[in-house]
Amino acid sequence: MSKPLKVALLGAGVVGSQVARIILEQGDTLESRIGRRLELVGVGVKRLDTERPGIDPALLTTDLEALVSRGDLDVVIELIGGVEPAGALVLKAIEHGASVVSANKALLADELGVLSRAAQEKGVDLYYEAAVAGAIPIIRPLRESLVGDDIIKVMGIVNGTTNFILDKMVTNGVGFDEALAEAQALGFAEADPTADVEGHDAAAKAAILAGLAFHTEVRREEVYCEGITGVTADDIAAAKRLGCTVKLLATASLTDDDSIIVKVHPAMVADKHPLASVSGAYNAIFVNSREAGELMFLGQGAGGSPTASAVMGDVVTVARNRHRGTAGYVGSPYTRRPVAPIAEATAQFHVTFDVVDRPGILARSAAIFGTHDVSLRVVQQTTQPGTGTARLEVMTHATTEASMAAIVAELEGSEFVGAPVRLMRVEGF
Amino acid sequence: MSKPLKVALLGAGVVGSQVARIILEQGDTLESRIGRRLELVGVGVKRLDTERPGIDPALLTTDLEALVSRGDLDVVIELIGGVEPAGALVLKAIEHGASVVSANKALLADELGVLSRAAQEKGVDLYYEAAVAGAIPIIRPLRESLVGDDIIKVMGIVNGTTNFILDKMVTNGVGFDEALAEAQALGFAEADPTADVEGHDAAAKAAILAGLAFHTEVRREEVYCEGITGVTADDIAAAKRLGCTVKLLATASLTDDDSIIVKVHPAMVADKHPLASVSGAYNAIFVNSREAGELMFLGQGAGGSPTASAVMGDVVTVARNRHRGTAGYVGSPYTRRPVAPIAEATAQFHVTFDVVDRPGILARSAAIFGTHDVSLRVVQQTTQPGTGTARLEVMTHATTEASMAAIVAELEGSEFVGAPVRLMRVEGF
Repeated sequence: MSKPLKVALLGAGVVGSQVARIILEQGDTLESRIGRRLELVGVGVKRLDTERPGIDPALLTTDLEALVSRGDLDVVIELIGGVEPAGALVLKAIEHGASVVSANKALLADELGVLSRAAQEKGVDLYYEAAVAGAIPIIRPLRESLVGDDIIKVMGIVNGTTNFILDKMVTNGVGFDEALAEAQALGFAEADPTADVEGHDAAAKAAILAGLAFHTEVRREEVYCEGITGVTADDIAAAKRLGCTVKLLATASLTDDDSIIVKVHPAMVADKHPLASVSGAYNAIFVNSREAGELMFLGQGAGGSPTASAVMGDVVTVARNRHRGTAGYVGSPYTRRPVAPIAEATAQFHVTFDVVDRPGILARSAAIFGTHDVSLRVVQQTTQPGTGTARLEVMTHATTEASMAAIVAELEGSEFVGAPVRLMRVEGF
Repeated sequence: MSKPLKVALLGAGVVGSQVARIILEQGDTLESRIGRRLELVGVGVKRLDTERPGIDPALLTTDLEALVSRGDLDVVIELIGGVEPAGALVLKAIEHGASVVSANKALLADELGVLSRAAQEKGVDLYYEAAVAGAIPIIRPLRESLVGDDIIKVMGIVNGTTNFILDKMVTNGVGFDEALAEAQALGFAEADPTADVEGHDAAAKAAILAGLAFHTEVRREEVYCEGITGVTADDIAAAKRLGCTVKLLATASLTDDDSIIVKVHPAMVADKHPLASVSGAYNAIFVNSREAGELMFLGQGAGGSPTASAVMGDVVTVARNRHRGTAGYVGSPYTRRPVAPIAEATAQFHVTFDVVDRPGILARSAAIFGTHDVSLRVVQQTTQPGTGTARLEVMTHATTEASMAAIVAELEGSEFVGAPVRLMRVEGF
């Protein structure tokens, strides 16, 4: 029997504690799948005085740098999150010859290129299935299964917190603040929900997905990002009338001139589209490719056990490689595709604004869309009793964000439009 | 620049012609993803006199054995289907040092163990993503992403022809024969539809999925197999009343004593279950695992381009390995789990039978279920005017197939039950 493979774990929180449990409880199963035993030799934590059931206290250390620099590690599992010190620790682990499994989307969105090159130079593995959409296998399908095909678009619901909040707004007919408060009370949103509700978490995942799908490097700051804090109960109701459900979508798509657009924003998704029915804490990723057509991947996007499942899949894969004396294909990006500004993105829009309620206004409003070459699918006018105004709701055909912005400016500048013009993108028609 | 990797293609039919097109048209893209150019050096076909646009006639040969025995091949793509001569050709290709990509479910259902061991001994790759569910990446997720987790159940719609026929029965309210004729007219079913409608194709895929999910070898003949030829318009209507849709399901699940059950049969699937809405030629695979919970994979299950996408993903993966002088993990089964007989499988059942229409019969019928320890969820009795009979429809709680068979025998033997007892399994309640 050969010696066990030495594994170090950085972080013993919600996911880390589950990973430790699986390594310790499933030793025989994992050994039979890998061909070698895994030995947990150290667990890097922030504080030693927290109760950690099942983990031998002798394994705990607060000196994470010393842990990853031991020099005898086969696999380092990084679950501490955040860009630093996680990035420096992962680099140090690679330098010392360990393969790395990470679930750290923030780090990978910023540093995937650097870390991939470091791993490739050192001949070790870097796997990160858990960084996007929790338990859903999406990284391998993009990195390997679809690598002989050309992806046109990747669109997903990749943040469970916002999906839960939007669900509550639909089900209970409440506004954003009330739904957020409920999500916080139930533990589905953090005390500071900014990263989730402003779309930053989804944007990091969008950058990773876009890079993999289009074989390029996408930096987090190249992702257009709009969260759900501005979504109102009116928007939810308008979506319902249109046969849609509001979802926070992360989208990466190829443009006609081979640049890409990467964006995160709420959208009204047609109920017949498979993403519309993805509810609660579930995530789903929809892929459109030239040869394969439409594919969808659905599963739990967060939580200790689901994320631990994805981490352990990577751990077994890199351990198998280690045991066989090889490393998997790191898949470094081979093109540097330009990321087009959001103004060049195309979308269909749902546009809502109040106008003076008198004859001819609907036609004059519609004409403004026409002068910007935007054609309309539906226009609906509803008199607002006692106000002297009517509400116009318009659904456009596909147009650019730039044209839409120009239309909004012109509408808001016209003497017959009252309230601010509200916009929401529409998907799946 | 290093020499191109030599690729031979066996079969140039619906899928093979698309694979040839991609290799020939996407040379630069594939080269950048692999790190080496692919060179198509031979195409094995049955007849030389068929028009094959885009393929240099000099590449064609009917001597497939000589082609795979050249000794200088890097990758052999086997797309001829059927167990033999495909199996002998794949083995020969492996013996001569080539990595193999196959889309041949019949072969892999029978010979996966033998072929995996041959590939492992020779240090070459054997990949077969396209053998199950066309373009849907399911093999890699089972082989790698979920390998650190324990799968409890895999359940899928893996045959597009039967899904199309069942769809037509629902949409047009027609019987099996009429729906089959329409599927044949539209090219969705073959002139001899036996392999599809009797469930044999789904059973081969179930064997492959079960082997991967449970790390064992499952032979095709161990799969319980029931097709859709017996599904009636009445069954479809009954399903609709229950809020269900009839689907042909392939299921592999773990039992309490760690054996497995692998089965293919039509079932009434609750409309709220994600598989119920998988329509037309789409396939979907639902996975339930201990840590990850529920996952679903959806996409086109057949057709030239979608299947070619899966084949090319494998081709790029094995070519990358070849270029780097390594081979992927073949993942040979490490346990031999017993496959339990269908009698031990549990399911919920929908049971329909006609009884003499007089007081007390419902109770006596229900009592027969009770004596076999089967409890009932719903019992519904409908008088059949002018016949002196009533129809009883029963939905059971979960029970074993053996108990259900005993109940059917007892019902059919009793003096008050008229017609044969009809059964359909129910999923998703």
